[in-house]
Amino acid sequence: MTRVKFNFSAGPAVLPEEVLKEASQAVVECGGTGMSVLCMSHRGGAYEALHMEALAGLRELLRVPESFAILLLQGGATQQFSQVAMNLAQGKPADYTLTGQWAEGAYKEAGKVATVRVAADSRKEKPARMPLLSEIKTGPDAAYLHITSNETVDGTQWKEFPTAPAPLVGDMSSDIMGRDIPWDRFGLVYAGAQKNLGPAGVTVVIVRKDLAEKAPTTIPVMLRYQTHVEKDSLHNTPPCFSIYVLALVTRWVKAQGGVAAMATRNKAKADKLYAAIDRTGFYRGTADKAHRSVMNVTFRLPSEDLEKAFLKEAEAAGLSGLKGHRAVGGLRASIYNAMPAAGVDALVSLMETFEKKNG
Amino acid sequence: MTRVKFNFSAGPAVLPEEVLKEASQAVVECGGTGMSVLCMSHRGGAYEALHMEALAGLRELLRVPESFAILLLQGGATQQFSQVAMNLAQGKPADYTLTGQWAEGAYKEAGKVATVRVAADSRKEKPARMPLLSEIKTGPDAAYLHITSNETVDGTQWKEFPTAPAPLVGDMSSDIMGRDIPWDRFGLVYAGAQKNLGPAGVTVVIVRKDLAEKAPTTIPVMLRYQTHVEKDSLHNTPPCFSIYVLALVTRWVKAQGGVAAMATRNKAKADKLYAAIDRTGFYRGTADKAHRSVMNVTFRLPSEDLEKAFLKEAEAAGLSGLKGHRAVGGLRASIYNAMPAAGVDALVSLMETFEKKNG
Repeated sequence: MTRVKFNFSAGPAVLPEEVLKEASQAVVECGGTGMSVLCMSHRGGAYEALHMEALAGLRELLRVPESFAILLLQGGATQQFSQVAMNLAQGKPADYTLTGQWAEGAYKEAGKVATVRVAADSRKEKPARMPLLSEIKTGPDAAYLHITSNETVDGTQWKEFPTAPAPLVGDMSSDIMGRDIPWDRFGLVYAGAQKNLGPAGVTVVIVRKDLAEKAPTTIPVMLRYQTHVEKDSLHNTPPCFSIYVLALVTRWVKAQGGVAAMATRNKAKADKLYAAIDRTGFYRGTADKAHRSVMNVTFRLPSEDLEKAFLKEAEAAGLSGLKGHRAVGGLRASIYNAMPAAGVDALVSLMETFEKKNG
Repeated sequence: MTRVKFNFSAGPAVLPEEVLKEASQAVVECGGTGMSVLCMSHRGGAYEALHMEALAGLRELLRVPESFAILLLQGGATQQFSQVAMNLAQGKPADYTLTGQWAEGAYKEAGKVATVRVAADSRKEKPARMPLLSEIKTGPDAAYLHITSNETVDGTQWKEFPTAPAPLVGDMSSDIMGRDIPWDRFGLVYAGAQKNLGPAGVTVVIVRKDLAEKAPTTIPVMLRYQTHVEKDSLHNTPPCFSIYVLALVTRWVKAQGGVAAMATRNKAKADKLYAAIDRTGFYRGTADKAHRSVMNVTFRLPSEDLEKAFLKEAEAAGLSGLKGHRAVGGLRASIYNAMPAAGVDALVSLMETFEKKNG
């Protein structure tokens, strides 16, 4: 098989080469501890230092105020879909914006444990887009307003976060660490790690402490945020290796200049790719231009046969993971933080060559 | 720091050197795929093959009948404490044997979502022991009878599994893959991986299919076993790396001769260590001889000062993780499948030297 040069997979996704090299070494022996990072007790000082580094790195990079707790959990965003409502609904209705497959999943799961309402629904819009802020119907009686900040399937992204009377709850799995978060508007942010933060297996939840502590005590201990707030996410054995790699990723982001530098790089990568899509009409972006994601760039070719041919040429050139989500087809280039500019350049170059041959 | 020669940690715990070497390589590039195992899409063929290998390896080694499904979940045994009851109580009371800290945790958590009863309670017995089979009070009206097959804190182990009118549910986190499981008596077995199966971050649940499919559909999707039965544990992004290492561990156990060979090796290691404890009276085992764990060997020295001195000498000799659980103190040697006989020999040798100097 061709050595993969650039991995455009939607997640698990590309990680920085430096991170992979250091993690590889740590699987044998970690940072002078004489022990594999996989075999360290989670109650020992060596692991604890890495765990606390991951938490501190997230707090610094995402500028998380002290009024919020950062939790390292398991089960992915899909587990959070119900867990958010268990903890935060607290007898009130919860409002949801339906913007695609992931938002819909969050709404359905929350409905199993709380009263949910639709605040906006842009799922059938073509081209795909997020709701306009003026379309959102929510009130002060809501426990929270849920948004999915970036829809990986449709390639859409909230460019401006809504301001609502109730706190926002955001699934930011696919754009956390790539944009600024206005914490004064948020009650909770959650994110599976496997896009911008690290490998699969750890889920980051950042929750306002006053909201977490009011959650019912009848919730099973692992599903109650307050358990993890009080124990620094060490109530039971955490997913140590995924958290360790997350700590390495926070080191890497710091070395790159932080989230603002990531946002600038990401915009440059996305602009270049969208420009290539818009250049002649051979390629066609599927998302409304005002709502295009900088993380997942979705596009079509003139026919499905050409799409298949393109994917084949891309794989042969070592550009992997470009197939669109099975629910919508087409192509998708996921260009998360760790995708180098050279990866986008290689893709743009292939697009030009392919168009010349087939346009 | 001294290079750790032998890691006696209760979990995360020692893994085979061969497994660590291969996993280290795969973090850079995995088995000819041209890609790090951390960056592979869980929907791609390369990851899927590893995922299915882990499932098949568990089925073969544990001789799991086709009437059971094997699930690869997240959240550790602590998540299972409530999840088991959500899925399997099905309106009936559930019976629990209280045998130590972990059994107590399972009982308390299940009580949040189902009616629970105490079938036996050996928690206050000194020396620590499991209930006698004759002490268990359970009936055919129970949904299941829960046992914790091995208590890591007290170093006790069920030597013979109870036979009950209802199916057994077993937390086997610390002795799975080290003993035979009589599937005709069980409805469900669960185990955090970080002792005998792999690194932290994946939880194995083996459930009778007819029990899983009767669970209420109102359970959140991630907490309902049937979700994962139907999707081969690929409903959402699984903890890919932990599952990959689990697959490597199943390869290693096969190469060692399977579970029966593990059980023989484990008994030999435990016998040698217990013989050293019993030799003169300087050391004192804390568990009743008939219920001594072959996985976690707990013992005391004549004084806490001597225990501290022993731990210090052990660390200096590269024998790590021998401190007893904070709830009980003393010493604990966890000698899981991957602990080589040479590790036990080194510990026994240190015990003899230490006794000569201090006895």
